[in-house]
Amino acid sequence: VALRSVVVELPIRPYTIHIGPRALARAGTLAPPSRDGQAAAIVADETTGQLFGAELLAGLREGGWRPQLVTVPPGEASKTLGVAGPLWGRLADLGLDRGSAVFALGGGVVGDLAGFVAATYMRGIDFITVPTTLLAQVDSSVGGKVGVDLPQAKNLVGAFHQPRAVLIDPGTLASLPERQFVAGLAEVVKHAAIADGGLFEDLARSAERVLTRDPDLLAGIIARNCAIKASVVARDPEERTGLRAVLNYGHTIGHAVERGAAAWGVLHGEAVAVGMVAESRVAARLGLSRADVPERLRTLLEALHVPTDVARSEIDVDLARRALKADKKIVGGTLALPVVPELGRAELTTAVPTDELVSEVEDLLRQA
Amino acid sequence: VALRSVVVELPIRPYTIHIGPRALARAGTLAPPSRDGQAAAIVADETTGQLFGAELLAGLREGGWRPQLVTVPPGEASKTLGVAGPLWGRLADLGLDRGSAVFALGGGVVGDLAGFVAATYMRGIDFITVPTTLLAQVDSSVGGKVGVDLPQAKNLVGAFHQPRAVLIDPGTLASLPERQFVAGLAEVVKHAAIADGGLFEDLARSAERVLTRDPDLLAGIIARNCAIKASVVARDPEERTGLRAVLNYGHTIGHAVERGAAAWGVLHGEAVAVGMVAESRVAARLGLSRADVPERLRTLLEALHVPTDVARSEIDVDLARRALKADKKIVGGTLALPVVPELGRAELTTAVPTDELVSEVEDLLRQA
Repeated sequence: VALRSVVVELPIRPYTIHIGPRALARAGTLAPPSRDGQAAAIVADETTGQLFGAELLAGLREGGWRPQLVTVPPGEASKTLGVAGPLWGRLADLGLDRGSAVFALGGGVVGDLAGFVAATYMRGIDFITVPTTLLAQVDSSVGGKVGVDLPQAKNLVGAFHQPRAVLIDPGTLASLPERQFVAGLAEVVKHAAIADGGLFEDLARSAERVLTRDPDLLAGIIARNCAIKASVVARDPEERTGLRAVLNYGHTIGHAVERGAAAWGVLHGEAVAVGMVAESRVAARLGLSRADVPERLRTLLEALHVPTDVARSEIDVDLARRALKADKKIVGGTLALPVVPELGRAELTTAVPTDELVSEVEDLLRQA
Repeated sequence: VALRSVVVELPIRPYTIHIGPRALARAGTLAPPSRDGQAAAIVADETTGQLFGAELLAGLREGGWRPQLVTVPPGEASKTLGVAGPLWGRLADLGLDRGSAVFALGGGVVGDLAGFVAATYMRGIDFITVPTTLLAQVDSSVGGKVGVDLPQAKNLVGAFHQPRAVLIDPGTLASLPERQFVAGLAEVVKHAAIADGGLFEDLARSAERVLTRDPDLLAGIIARNCAIKASVVARDPEERTGLRAVLNYGHTIGHAVERGAAAWGVLHGEAVAVGMVAESRVAARLGLSRADVPERLRTLLEALHVPTDVARSEIDVDLARRALKADKKIVGGTLALPVVPELGRAELTTAVPTDELVSEVEDLLRQA
């Protein structure tokens, strides 16, 4: 099977996303070193390091890189300053200099952490992502947002650091736990909802086959998703014009749910699915979208086995409310909220009062 | 006395350095908020906060800012992740959002620390510097380099984050300890040596008056220095073309001395003075500069009371040697060293073997 590629047309330096079988084994050819023997650290969590580390190391060596594997504990707790601190020191101990590079091998946590470390090590060195979860492949690997969490908020400390290349092998998804795979589908639905009505319909038609994880079907879906995200990011790389903010569809309530439900460890994609349906209800109620959007969203998500309600009880309502009010998208007190007037198209609005969102979250939680 | 101003012509967003009396009291007018009531944190060390905090707070309030003062302990030890970590959290607790700003009030440590925190808080918020030491006024306040130290090396973690504006009152220098004032003069001499032969001669003529800290004379010198640094930085904002690297004149041996002499707390400017004279000797010996450069440099530095030899004994030679070999300017094993072929002009060369520098450092230390 041939590789698919998507070019992200950034103003300063475009880069390519390579998607297809054996992308890791061919890493050194797809993302060649800038000179023979260029040093690199592969940052992985212990799980992804175990599963894919050897393949990526071999692929990079074959292309002339001098790579070393560095692992961090798996899980969200690694996306913190407590892990970033020693990691910076580790890169120095490995002898990495301004001409070296960092590869992120794993899901969103590893990508965000390794990307932030690369963005700030010696004021920024090369960064290549090798995402191994569906969520990271369709979402966090494109866009250049990197960072770590603080107790006060997620992604509170971070940077924009665009990768030099992205390498995706859909075969890595075979070993992904069902719940994580399905959570990634939530972001796929989000991209379709905000930018591609045709993809939305294709997903509705092929939902069952998607769940079998057919690598070729997935490669096509991942490529379309990367193209959607890339085109939005290319128009607004550092989230300045507001154009890029449509990617945050579902994330306002989603983040609040994520914070409030920290006790039961909701996944990001699961929270975004809940957020999209809840935000679409608010938008429909206020006359900002077609009336059928919430139901069509919910139907597709459920066909893909993505839960759309908060079916757990251990949610801290106060925490969710505070998270909503501390949202980064609120600039100077006003919230610019992405809405989907009809499936396949999104826009930003300031017409939704924060209180409407807070009360929607409270309703959600009352039902739970 | 009127204000002087120097515009730094950066490709994306130029900014202005305002130099003159009462620059702090007029801060809110010179650097107005982007909207009325914009929130800001003034980061200062306890000493500068005490000396100048009230004046800056009042100046900012008068211009429509909503500023709050946050202090950190004085000294180099604050330029670390251990201080940056709580500072990020503090900004969140103060309610700063993506539309807020950080002012750095103090010397290089506060500027580097606060700048790094601003560069990474919510992926980057506005940053304004109010340097109160001569070194910071003529050097670190221009250029956008921010960061913190790690045990492995200085500035190992950092970013490029250009300020929105720089506010300099030469009157703040009246309270500066003699040793710090004089160390700042070392960078003034460096700028003259690499870019302005006329300034070099002016300094030689007016050395005695410079030492009286006449505010108007200093305002003129600071403005010329900012203009030199600004013109270099504007041609290479993120140190990519090598053009900017000439600013590191004296810094290769300087940093090594700084690390090796950590026990007696050498100041950055003192180390750079030692480094300039030592590097100029190496360059003259290798035929890369006029023979009179080392002596003329030494004469001017001494006229300005800047020590040019390592007249202390507690230097760790191994530490200095290791620091030299770990230098960030070494990319892929090759050192691009700035040299001054004649006073007023600098260029980069790869013709100086690292070993020559190491043996020069060893000679220096043997004499000490």
